[in-house]
Amino acid sequence: MGMSNVASVGIVTPQTAHFSEPLALKSGAVLPAFDLVYETYGTLNAERSNVILVCHALSGTHHVAGNYSEEDKYPGWWDNIVGSGRPLDTDKFFIIGVNNLGGCHGSTGPASIDPTTQQPWGSRFPVVTVEDWVAAQARLADKLGIQTFAAVMGGSLGGMQALQWTLSFPDRVRHALVIAAAPNLTAQNIAFNEVARQAIITDPEFHNGDFYAHSVVPRRGLRLARMLGHITYLSDDAMGEKFGRKLKHDAVKYSFDVEFEMESYLRYQGDKFAGEFDANTYLRMTRALDYYDPAAQYNGDLSAALAKAKAQFLVISFTSDWRFSPARSREIVKALLENERTVSYAELTAAHGHDAFLMPDPQYHAIVNAYMQRVAGEIV
Amino acid sequence: MGMSNVASVGIVTPQTAHFSEPLALKSGAVLPAFDLVYETYGTLNAERSNVILVCHALSGTHHVAGNYSEEDKYPGWWDNIVGSGRPLDTDKFFIIGVNNLGGCHGSTGPASIDPTTQQPWGSRFPVVTVEDWVAAQARLADKLGIQTFAAVMGGSLGGMQALQWTLSFPDRVRHALVIAAAPNLTAQNIAFNEVARQAIITDPEFHNGDFYAHSVVPRRGLRLARMLGHITYLSDDAMGEKFGRKLKHDAVKYSFDVEFEMESYLRYQGDKFAGEFDANTYLRMTRALDYYDPAAQYNGDLSAALAKAKAQFLVISFTSDWRFSPARSREIVKALLENERTVSYAELTAAHGHDAFLMPDPQYHAIVNAYMQRVAGEIV
Repeated sequence: MGMSNVASVGIVTPQTAHFSEPLALKSGAVLPAFDLVYETYGTLNAERSNVILVCHALSGTHHVAGNYSEEDKYPGWWDNIVGSGRPLDTDKFFIIGVNNLGGCHGSTGPASIDPTTQQPWGSRFPVVTVEDWVAAQARLADKLGIQTFAAVMGGSLGGMQALQWTLSFPDRVRHALVIAAAPNLTAQNIAFNEVARQAIITDPEFHNGDFYAHSVVPRRGLRLARMLGHITYLSDDAMGEKFGRKLKHDAVKYSFDVEFEMESYLRYQGDKFAGEFDANTYLRMTRALDYYDPAAQYNGDLSAALAKAKAQFLVISFTSDWRFSPARSREIVKALLENERTVSYAELTAAHGHDAFLMPDPQYHAIVNAYMQRVAGEIV
Repeated sequence: MGMSNVASVGIVTPQTAHFSEPLALKSGAVLPAFDLVYETYGTLNAERSNVILVCHALSGTHHVAGNYSEEDKYPGWWDNIVGSGRPLDTDKFFIIGVNNLGGCHGSTGPASIDPTTQQPWGSRFPVVTVEDWVAAQARLADKLGIQTFAAVMGGSLGGMQALQWTLSFPDRVRHALVIAAAPNLTAQNIAFNEVARQAIITDPEFHNGDFYAHSVVPRRGLRLARMLGHITYLSDDAMGEKFGRKLKHDAVKYSFDVEFEMESYLRYQGDKFAGEFDANTYLRMTRALDYYDPAAQYNGDLSAALAKAKAQFLVISFTSDWRFSPARSREIVKALLENERTVSYAELTAAHGHDAFLMPDPQYHAIVNAYMQRVAGEIV
């Protein structure tokens, strides 16, 4: 048995692209100019035909893989899938991660300075949609001279962007990897988003979205939103396995302080997020999820909506994902098959719930790896 | 076809019982004296052997059935099951509903005046448990001269009380009806409770539980807690059926105001609850749920924990209840069978999720009705 050649992408540096042409958004608003921050891993080939776009989910960023310094302990959010010998093999592919428009990690968003007022956009930053993100990502592709992506991929909200790429720009995507996604949100999904948004909006320090001027942050609301989010990312079983009814202390204290490990975990995750993430971005990311529904303009006929797609698809779902259940992925697969598209579908047994798409499950990674080898084989 | 004799209990009036003997609580705290508010329906027989105790869940009250006036449009919370010719037949049974200790509908609770300070108890009101409620209910039974209940019953947290009655007072319960309940909360259940509590506790108007003195109410927190609660009471399917992705207005407005009917429903329910319910009671009710775990003192062996029970049981669960799933009810059934107790178990197909226990489903009511006829037949 020899050592495998698997390796991280190492130290990476984000770049910023500026776009001075206005972008007309789905809402009717127009963004006069914007920046997108992005990272790349691997080498662009001469034909510019080996490019993979990785789209991020609600709280993700352009920092998909690698580390920012030798001391940086936390690699990018999908580091386990990107690198030499990994499913997104940097020996073959040129991989791009972009922070979405409206984000809070470098791309233009609500905390950015509006050049016309020299104040943060705040409440005036428009509502952005999955379609808008795809349009902005296409601008970046134009700027980088990339006509066609070998693959566009993502999990959760990122999977919705991959799907939308095949509809907005059918000729610019060879393969779409749509993982742990859905063709739209259910009422229950919308309900969870609404509670999270109301937690933020009713936080007295939200100041109607213009909290920047008050030098405060709606931490309480963000914290609650994130705590709630974490419940929906994990399966009941995974939570039971990890925390169960384990107590934090030797005995119950009969108080409202932390009694159970479960509570401690949620508070930690909530506090961490509240110190890092922008409240206005959170509102917009969840609204983009709510609004996404390509079948809506076809009277709910998803098959009709996906007729435009020309890409080949890999759709993956996870059995314990109750946020975007396998049944929702099957709706996408069915609609694609009705259009006689080439679709591979894997419904994977996984304990982790929605978060499974981020986990280095060997079967899951083997499937992505095999599919990406096929994609690599087609590159001219 | 003649008219059936089914009828509501009509106009009802709550009563208050005062208890001047101190009550030692599970936490170690002692409540020096307390009131319990209760209602009764039907007629106590001479042998005092026809009594049913109905235990309420998180936001329930002693007002189980009937109306307070001719103009009162909203009957008690389980009115559909109580009355002449109904499953809890007032022609046969004497039914008692009690507001639990720590409640906010008349029984002594955090908003009550502490006689030693002449101020509301607020944060100083002790944490109460399912065991404490049962002990307080037993005091009421003593006062009313009721030695043995023909049945103790409840849904959800009420079902936990029915179960605990068979353990705290095995000789005082002939039958226990444990509906949509669980032998303890899962990590996920605890997680939802914790988010709800944190919404309340971090509301600036909570004032560490002593908001009464500030003439404010932590409405924001209570509202969020209730919105979140409603998501867990309904099934994903029931929400899909009732709301789906229906818009509130003709078209999407690209805003954070109400866009979907689902959002409108949640906000309405949250606002209504925030104007009615006491925040300190909410914290205590959810903590009582968290702590309940009769198997804990038996190293998690539920069978050993339930060995004390002498009652006969009807256990009912609902297929779409993901809060207290059928699997949790089956744990109770299994543990009782291991003790060779007499158990009837019904796992009912129902779309409504956890709320199904409140719904007038014909099959459900037929099962309760048949069981209660058996209970009635045993009354001497």
